[in-house]
Amino acid sequence: MKVDCSRPIGVFDSGLGGLTVARELNAALPWERIVYLGDTARVPYGTRSAGTVIRYARGCARFLAKSEIKALVVACNTVSAVAMDHLRAELDLPVLGVIGPGARAAVCASRTGRIGVLATLGTVASGAYPREVAGISSRCEVFQRAAPLLVSLAEEGWLDGEVPRLAARRYLEPLVASGVDVVLLGCTHFPLLRACIEEVLAELAGGTVRVVDSAQATAQHVAVFLAERGLAAAESQGGLHVCVTDLPGTFEATAAAFLGAKPDSFEEVDL
Amino acid sequence: MKVDCSRPIGVFDSGLGGLTVARELNAALPWERIVYLGDTARVPYGTRSAGTVIRYARGCARFLAKSEIKALVVACNTVSAVAMDHLRAELDLPVLGVIGPGARAAVCASRTGRIGVLATLGTVASGAYPREVAGISSRCEVFQRAAPLLVSLAEEGWLDGEVPRLAARRYLEPLVASGVDVVLLGCTHFPLLRACIEEVLAELAGGTVRVVDSAQATAQHVAVFLAERGLAAAESQGGLHVCVTDLPGTFEATAAAFLGAKPDSFEEVDL
Repeated sequence: MKVDCSRPIGVFDSGLGGLTVARELNAALPWERIVYLGDTARVPYGTRSAGTVIRYARGCARFLAKSEIKALVVACNTVSAVAMDHLRAELDLPVLGVIGPGARAAVCASRTGRIGVLATLGTVASGAYPREVAGISSRCEVFQRAAPLLVSLAEEGWLDGEVPRLAARRYLEPLVASGVDVVLLGCTHFPLLRACIEEVLAELAGGTVRVVDSAQATAQHVAVFLAERGLAAAESQGGLHVCVTDLPGTFEATAAAFLGAKPDSFEEVDL
Repeated sequence: MKVDCSRPIGVFDSGLGGLTVARELNAALPWERIVYLGDTARVPYGTRSAGTVIRYARGCARFLAKSEIKALVVACNTVSAVAMDHLRAELDLPVLGVIGPGARAAVCASRTGRIGVLATLGTVASGAYPREVAGISSRCEVFQRAAPLLVSLAEEGWLDGEVPRLAARRYLEPLVASGVDVVLLGCTHFPLLRACIEEVLAELAGGTVRVVDSAQATAQHVAVFLAERGLAAAESQGGLHVCVTDLPGTFEATAAAFLGAKPDSFEEVDL
């Protein structure tokens, strides 16, 4: 099937965290139009069972497929970890996730081969990152840690101060004790807490541990993928349209925190 | 309509927090059979818009109505705050919430008439507690504070230590500064953090502020209501059956934390 390269890229996440991926996509591919779907009526996915995550992810993917997108970027780590095969089987579209690019970036950044992953309960339970890293390099070992409270802290906007610092410390201590030299942020919410996480890592390990965020790696991967397939936009379109399944009063502030700007347009939709 | 008093009481909440209400119901009414529904596939409700909460609450209420219950107890503060009229209009059943009993308990406990309410964003935005208190006593004033992170801390099981203590302090300081002598726990998740909240209040106000939990007041209200309507069970049945819309790996531990025991039976259901 020859796909029209002027179509938008579809991006979805459980909530608004995936706007960190949309932001990097926009930086890497300013010509591309992006349609983003945040399932804010059912966020978070990371604490739910794999079966429920797959069901929700299918609904999101079907909605975006109806918007005539040329490729689907699954910004959600939890969905990328448990539902990629289901989405690829169902959609007649390229489907790209964040696990592969994130794992490759972590492997490249690590000198010791000991990689820490901070993620949701669902992503950790899936074993997707250890599996992906093992497929890239046999010299690497992955140490995972579920950090559900960091999702809530990012949503609440508590990005510095004692509470996020102590929470991050509690999650990071066992990773540092395992001797990791890279911590991969395996959830789209965590980049908001990056400064806090880096500060705690500096305290615990004196600057020997680097933080890797999969959003940037994913955007690069999407850029290369579109170029290779002849799917890159031939002329400048740009623009980010955000769809959400629930529009609470906090939407604009939260969206701005993740995106670093206002979206060009937004609407509430029913899946 | 004459309702069969041997039917169970239906109880629902956004997640498992409402098991604190089921526990108090069971203590007050050990003869009664309880069917509990926790919408664990869509928890939390407290950060969502009123429209979405009403839609979800309707789905939960319809599900329990099909289980032939004699009365519906809305254990969720957010649903009780925004959806009671919708549920009462739709169901041919008594529908009882937690806002009224909680507000009455707080008014009774306060000597100064200055009442603090710790609740979700949705409950605070609805103004349900200030409205209810104003209807009971014109001498009382309500000071509200949304505390979404306490929901996540209770779900994560971080009930003591520095992180919950500092988070509780951040939420409670403005309430104490307003001169409240009662803090009402306006979310079913918060009783798990009661010891921590009381400790922080003792530090901030030296034992002059009492904590009131609506779960016990609601159970007493339900007991009186059933007795007055001739709906109390005529013979001992007992038993708590828990239905959930998602069954993650953490279910049994979280349920036990809120209920203080194992449910008699549980199942995953599709609304």
